[in-house]
Amino acid sequence: MSKKEEIKIVTGNKRKFEELNEIAKEYNLKLSMIDLPKFEIQADTLEEVVRHAASVIYTMLHEPIILEDSGLFIESLNGFPGPYTKFAKQTIDINGILKLMTNIENRKAYFKTALAYVDEYEIKIFTGEVHGKISYEAKGDKGFGFDPIFIPDGCEKTFAELNIQEKNQYSHRSRAFRKFLEYYL
Amino acid sequence: MSKKEEIKIVTGNKRKFEELNEIAKEYNLKLSMIDLPKFEIQADTLEEVVRHAASVIYTMLHEPIILEDSGLFIESLNGFPGPYTKFAKQTIDINGILKLMTNIENRKAYFKTALAYVDEYEIKIFTGEVHGKISYEAKGDKGFGFDPIFIPDGCEKTFAELNIQEKNQYSHRSRAFRKFLEYYL
Repeated sequence: MSKKEEIKIVTGNKRKFEELNEIAKEYNLKLSMIDLPKFEIQADTLEEVVRHAASVIYTMLHEPIILEDSGLFIESLNGFPGPYTKFAKQTIDINGILKLMTNIENRKAYFKTALAYVDEYEIKIFTGEVHGKISYEAKGDKGFGFDPIFIPDGCEKTFAELNIQEKNQYSHRSRAFRKFLEYYL
Repeated sequence: MSKKEEIKIVTGNKRKFEELNEIAKEYNLKLSMIDLPKFEIQADTLEEVVRHAASVIYTMLHEPIILEDSGLFIESLNGFPGPYTKFAKQTIDINGILKLMTNIENRKAYFKTALAYVDEYEIKIFTGEVHGKISYEAKGDKGFGFDPIFIPDGCEKTFAELNIQEKNQYSHRSRAFRKFLEYYL
């Protein structure tokens, strides 16, 4: 059972790793980070993106790994930025999203994670979502990405105002990761 | 030399095909359209997108083909929407871009095409660009995509106000295609 005592995740994002590592500790699972470029396709869904990325990375590494992709889907913007959230962050950034949302009353949005586990015999995908709304201004400096403008339902604060433990109570990523852990362990 | 009398392009966009077909006729080249899903990766450059798509499609079809990808790069938005222009069109659309450009004086933008030719022995990439500016309102109903809000330098009208022959005098796509034709023929 030594395989089940640890798992590697492909990511270059330390804050993402720290979020998942907090959860892994609860399960006495050793999580380690492999910082490799993730081969990503243009697809309508996160599931397609991670399925293909997992397949490609397995042919290179030949060891069980997990990888995930997350996106922010804004209802009034027809799901934008969705699978291209990272690119939107790098270009139009938080102010661009707030500008697009000017005079829009429907602030509904959700974050979604698709997490793929791959080993020699399978690729399995776990998803997690958190519904909430886009705030009218950016608040907080924790987290990353569009965390400063996302307020999860049942909370008064943005993701960027919450510490890791608080964010993990709500987050799409923690939900997908816990589903994986239940399967894997 | 029969191979040089025709070429197939992978696209599902009839208006795009018509633009290129107008040019092909000048050269007595028979252009035909294969409507297959184009396998696209998430990449920072159009060149990477078409290189990979060409490689994948060749392993399926085993015949010489061309395919292209184009994007609108807006200077004040750090190159957004760039390689994800089609997705931006499907989600935030023209009004979203105009909203992002509200109160922005620097309207500079360019359209770029990367066109890949693939046969058994090579993948070769040809590019074309057209510089211009983002208009303050949408005009015209010709063309497709963000044509109604792009005014090429040296012109008073948007791409969507020009007919195919006029647009081809300026367009990124026609420039890339002519470079290919000079190589191929």
